[in-house]
Amino acid sequence: MSFDTYFPVWDKLNTEQKELISKSLITQRIEKGTIVHNGALDCTGLLLVKSGQLRTYILSDEGREITLYRLFDMDMCLLSASCIMRSIQFEVTIEAEKDTTLWIIPAEIYKIIMDKSAPVANYTNELMASRFSDVMWLMEQIMWKSLDKRVAMFLLEESSIEGTNELKITHETIANHIGSHREVITRMLRYFQGEGLVKLSRGKITILDEKGMEEIRDA
Amino acid sequence: MSFDTYFPVWDKLNTEQKELISKSLITQRIEKGTIVHNGALDCTGLLLVKSGQLRTYILSDEGREITLYRLFDMDMCLLSASCIMRSIQFEVTIEAEKDTTLWIIPAEIYKIIMDKSAPVANYTNELMASRFSDVMWLMEQIMWKSLDKRVAMFLLEESSIEGTNELKITHETIANHIGSHREVITRMLRYFQGEGLVKLSRGKITILDEKGMEEIRDA
Repeated sequence: MSFDTYFPVWDKLNTEQKELISKSLITQRIEKGTIVHNGALDCTGLLLVKSGQLRTYILSDEGREITLYRLFDMDMCLLSASCIMRSIQFEVTIEAEKDTTLWIIPAEIYKIIMDKSAPVANYTNELMASRFSDVMWLMEQIMWKSLDKRVAMFLLEESSIEGTNELKITHETIANHIGSHREVITRMLRYFQGEGLVKLSRGKITILDEKGMEEIRDA
Repeated sequence: MSFDTYFPVWDKLNTEQKELISKSLITQRIEKGTIVHNGALDCTGLLLVKSGQLRTYILSDEGREITLYRLFDMDMCLLSASCIMRSIQFEVTIEAEKDTTLWIIPAEIYKIIMDKSAPVANYTNELMASRFSDVMWLMEQIMWKSLDKRVAMFLLEESSIEGTNELKITHETIANHIGSHREVITRMLRYFQGEGLVKLSRGKITILDEKGMEEIRDA
């Protein structure tokens, strides 16, 4: 598959814009563990994940991390080009969690096109809204509902009661136990899975990192 | 002052687009306390604050609120038109904190123009990035640094030591006491002031709502 099949608004570009992107497009293979973007220091450009996995997180002064979201195949990474919008006033770190192949559209090239093309600007808007929504979800769950704590506590209790790290339990059951909704529990469990805390499989939740789960519970 | 002097990309619109907005523009006066936008129920449109003050907040199932940001004269409110972007997957409430005069561009009209106009789409992008940044700031401060708690605790202690609610203390001093930066403390104090917890004046911080401050400290 080539870049034009990955970039959703390719057909909305004029010939000149297509040529500009094609000429400046960089393909890069990066190894697992590579820091792709480091706060305000970098303004690499728009990244399109061809294959692999990226993690976007924020880092406190004390070195604590919070994962904001992950990007998978065909996802577009906007915050690695945060310099193109002066109103983005926060810094994130982006790291390859797997060996990853990327296309990079240099920031200045993307900006030239976005300034002129309504479809590209609107596509960028949807990207930002989507990441904004991820962050709002995370904030609501953690700040208010302490849902991360409550799910961690519940799973640790179950594990202690059953004497095993392999829990045969549905998301629905967890939701009922802690007064939430199945969809919400599923999303939080997937977040835990992404963090390497649990492994999800059909009708089963396996606790992989008991210590990590305890840290969340006791935070 | 008329609408075109308030709307930053007015000059970038073509005649047809200007007419479309002018024809559909609604001017509304609303009283303090009015809910201007209520989560997914509404999709009023883009609001431009002519004069007054709006507060955007999220509401938990238990009825707790967190203020995300405020809008003042000449500010544009995007999330009241969240239906125009399918990727906005969260809900906010917007309330008039003072008697407010608004211009409203109906959501469907704004969408028609944004779809065609790169300047309007890019302006919308900057608006969203700006609100996204507000939320990131809030999340970082509250989740990690518990800066709200630490500032509240410090001010309450000082007040108790000095035997007065009128503290003669600089933001710099507070920053030094709790290991932060002056700019960060100033921003948090302004947030407190917006919430009616303190009043800021030259070289002085007055605690207005001791109970509210204690609630933050003990949260």
